Amino acid sequence: MTKNDDKKSQTNEKSVLILSGGMDSTTLLYKLVSEGKKIFALSFNYGQKHKKELKFARYNCKKLNVPHKIIDLSGLKEQGLFGKSSLTSEIDIPEGHYEEPTMKSTVVPNRNMIMLSIAISYAISIGAKTIYYGAHAGDHAVYPDCRPEFVEKMQKVAESCHYYPISINAPFLHIDKGDIVAQGLKLNVDYSKTWTCYKGQEKACGKCGSCVERLEAFEKNGISDPLQYSI
Amino acid sequence: MTKNDDKKSQTNEKSVLILSGGMDSTTLLYKLVSEGKKIFALSFNYGQKHKKELKFARYNCKKLNVPHKIIDLSGLKEQGLFGKSSLTSEIDIPEGHYEEPTMKSTVVPNRNMIMLSIAISYAISIGAKTIYYGAHAGDHAVYPDCRPEFVEKMQKVAESCHYYPISINAPFLHIDKGDIVAQGLKLNVDYSKTWTCYKGQEKACGKCGSCVERLEAFEKNGISDPLQYSI
Repeated sequence: MTKNDDKKSQTNEKSVLILSGGMDSTTLLYKLVSEGKKIFALSFNYGQKHKKELKFARYNCKKLNVPHKIIDLSGLKEQGLFGKSSLTSEIDIPEGHYEEPTMKSTVVPNRNMIMLSIAISYAISIGAKTIYYGAHAGDHAVYPDCRPEFVEKMQKVAESCHYYPISINAPFLHIDKGDIVAQGLKLNVDYSKTWTCYKGQEKACGKCGSCVERLEAFEKNGISDPLQYSI
Repeated sequence: MTKNDDKKSQTNEKSVLILSGGMDSTTLLYKLVSEGKKIFALSFNYGQKHKKELKFARYNCKKLNVPHKIIDLSGLKEQGLFGKSSLTSEIDIPEGHYEEPTMKSTVVPNRNMIMLSIAISYAISIGAKTIYYGAHAGDHAVYPDCRPEFVEKMQKVAESCHYYPISINAPFLHIDKGDIVAQGLKLNVDYSKTWTCYKGQEKACGKCGSCVERLEAFEKNGISDPLQYSI
């Protein structure tokens, strides 16, 4: 086998990407597709207020000709499992900086493990052995299930959950949203077709932690966010 | 705090039990309740042919006054995630000994990680820090997600998925179904109110790996299984 054949067989392997429709996972989608990987995208409706992100996930998958499934977990919310998160309940979305303790109300308990475990199941079903997700350094302060320690331990358990190891990859784990935008701009990601605001209204609020982080990321790159804001 | 107070505070802590309605998790339910633990039971409809097990889960929880939720994951099957398992598809349930390679068709990919991850989310929602599930030594040959290695790694990741560690416990991990029945008989478990057969018909088939293992467990204890069989 030549080096090129080897590269081809690697890129022809199927991989599953957890795609929220936000900036980070959408950039990851473009990056993986640009590397020639055969991506199967998986999105989740878990009853989030900002479920309009799913439309953007759908849009980008269609544009890149990537198979896309939206898994409906809204029943979990109806059964009270995600009831104390401001993302899925009547509790107001907090405003302010994304590293502030008030942002803890946006945690959906164990959401990432649930999504990763379903992604693994899906991977096994379609003969894929690799999972990608968009956890990044900006998430570490608030979200335990985006921290390197969690990712490393998920990687370990994914090696033992089936007859062969499943690999979990978070390529943005040690870079922040500003660095992600920098990569996405090179990949021609249209960020007007990504959704970040937790409030999920017609226009992005510009005040929630998620918007603040997004705006900072564009500022870091010296450009304006193409998304419309209500501020 | 006296030793008794300490014991009381431990037993008053809420725990979540994954309860299928089969022999193992039902015995674990009785064991934990007998120890004074405050159990919240969680069952799953994942589109299994033998979903009648859920009625038995409901029955035993009602009998023991244990809060019980049934989580509906049948949508995952409808989206093709569990499509290649004989438990959830048109593929025939294999007959024979439960350690035979043919039994691999009964694997539902990554089912236990999905159930455990949702159980962790539920635990966090109700203020519990402990999860129990009924994996046992008889499962090790066929099911990777019942093996000690998997359980150990799940325990590790559950320590990091939230702001405080969640503990995962599989008290039957190193004993077999015969030993479990021995414990259950002492706890007065009514095994006619548990369901094991993968075929899920009116009477248990007595031929699938799951029935074979169950019948062996009763034989090991020198008693008859009170359940009705079609053989």
